[in-house]
Amino acid sequence: MGVVYAIDLIGTFAFAISGALVAKREDFDIFGVIIIAFVTAVGGGMLRDILINAYPINWIGDLNYIWVILMAVVVMYLFKSKIASLSKTMFLFDTVGISVFTILGLQKGLSFHLPPIVALIMGMVSAVFGGVLRDVLTREVPLIFKKEIYASACLLGGVVYLILQKLKIDSNLQFIISAAVTFTVRFVAVKYRLQLPKIDKDIFGN
Amino acid sequence: MGVVYAIDLIGTFAFAISGALVAKREDFDIFGVIIIAFVTAVGGGMLRDILINAYPINWIGDLNYIWVILMAVVVMYLFKSKIASLSKTMFLFDTVGISVFTILGLQKGLSFHLPPIVALIMGMVSAVFGGVLRDVLTREVPLIFKKEIYASACLLGGVVYLILQKLKIDSNLQFIISAAVTFTVRFVAVKYRLQLPKIDKDIFGN
Amino acid sequence: MGVVYAIDLIGTFAFAISGALVAKREDFDIFGVIIIAFVTAVGGGMLRDILINAYPINWIGDLNYIWVILMAVVVMYLFKSKIASLSKTMFLFDTVGISVFTILGLQKGLSFHLPPIVALIMGMVSAVFGGVLRDVLTREVPLIFKKEIYASACLLGGVVYLILQKLKIDSNLQFIISAAVTFTVRFVAVKYRLQLPKIDKDIFGN
Repeated sequence: MGVVYAIDLIGTFAFAISGALVAKREDFDIFGVIIIAFVTAVGGGMLRDILINAYPINWIGDLNYIWVILMAVVVMYLFKSKIASLSKTMFLFDTVGISVFTILGLQKGLSFHLPPIVALIMGMVSAVFGGVLRDVLTREVPLIFKKEIYASACLLGGVVYLILQKLKIDSNLQFIISAAVTFTVRFVAVKYRLQLPKIDKDIFGN
Repeated sequence: MGVVYAIDLIGTFAFAISGALVAKREDFDIFGVIIIAFVTAVGGGMLRDILINAYPINWIGDLNYIWVILMAVVVMYLFKSKIASLSKTMFLFDTVGISVFTILGLQKGLSFHLPPIVALIMGMVSAVFGGVLRDVLTREVPLIFKKEIYASACLLGGVVYLILQKLKIDSNLQFIISAAVTFTVRFVAVKYRLQLPKIDKDIFGN
Repeated sequence: MGVVYAIDLIGTFAFAISGALVAKREDFDIFGVIIIAFVTAVGGGMLRDILINAYPINWIGDLNYIWVILMAVVVMYLFKSKIASLSKTMFLFDTVGISVFTILGLQKGLSFHLPPIVALIMGMVSAVFGGVLRDVLTREVPLIFKKEIYASACLLGGVVYLILQKLKIDSNLQFIISAAVTFTVRFVAVKYRLQLPKIDKDIFGN
């Protein structure tokens, strides 16, 4: 499915740009920038593949990831000042990226005959852990741990995919609808600054 | 051996609670809390399995770990205020947990025909690295690196196991005695606030 | 090739000493010191082997690494005060180490039939990621990300190796020349305090 592959590479590109920007802001040199861009872009899928024993792992099995990441680093250096003003475009790319990464990771998990809940986790790992590794290497507290709509959006899209699959609807539709769910949830959440409640007094009152 | 499996799950539960408490204290949201609970509880065994190529890795091969961890997170939220007053019970669970994790990890290493010293390291990795990963993700300096009785207790229990195995005593006894050694050493060390000397002037005098 | 193996162990020793020194400075206890020495010395090769599915991984397949690392820890404690004055010797060991690690990692990658660019990355991972893991565990911003001559030197040596291999010159010569390139570049860079430009105004002027 060529469209999905294209979106996968676009998502990779967006993740790499976001990693490169963080590294640049932290005053890393060119190698640091490349490593952080790399880890952000393919770290989630890499961890997924190691966890489920899927060798060769993502970026070793398909060199296009490397080229896309290197391109993203060049683009970041060339258009650094302009990228700030493109933050909405970047956010769109990034959100498309996690939507697709989630479903692709989930599908890979299922294709390895993992139980649905494990496949679901693999979808989330694919979409989320690149950012976690980026934050660990740049000594940030992983953002994902404090603003959970991101992970919730992946979870929801993944659950929808599993349901649609049970319903045996067309497989392209399965993909499109569930990715759209993740996309929409995150998009709306960011636009209206939604956050899940910190489960605390809000819910249990203790 | 049903008893060992039960203790394994109890240890997992205790580790998950401890991870969830740390994450809550750091003001992580629900997803952050689940991830930290998860990593603390199964991170050591997961790393061990990746290092020795034991697929499917621990929590993928047995879904009960996932359910136990999710239960622990719910319990943490429900009884947060009470858990503080249960710290002695939690400490007991946790100490039983590391005692069992050490021997189970060591046994798994041996069952993969690894040399005894590597199996011993695998026992310690199983018991210790969940906490290390928790600390890395929450940006703490890993506690284990500063208060070594924890690791020493695991090491001692592991060494005792290897000796008992050479002596060919009953395999249940091997397990019980060596786990009891780890348990006792840690229990006594914490009760009397023992710490290994920082090897420094204390020992080498330079 | 016995000489290469000897140099591999010497490099391991140098890396272990450097890790142990950092851990000691951070006031870690004996277990913390051993773990950091271990991770610094074999972490890069361990990560490489996990990424390319090369089991048993480096230190599990050859116990000599463990003994060398334990020896290095003892040496660090015994001669702590003298090692400071030996910093030039240590730097030489360390630089020989990365030079050899890079080419050994690259060769291992090629022997697993990986594309040259992936093998090149594996060479760099071998030489560089032990230090990255050390820095993550001790909560430093990984040095490598800020002083890139280190990584550049590895990259250059690796590229030279790939070229020499295409030219089909004697395989010992391939090894020696390319390792010498890494060694020389790093040696000269440190001696004259060279740094690649932070790509910024320096280059793109924006």
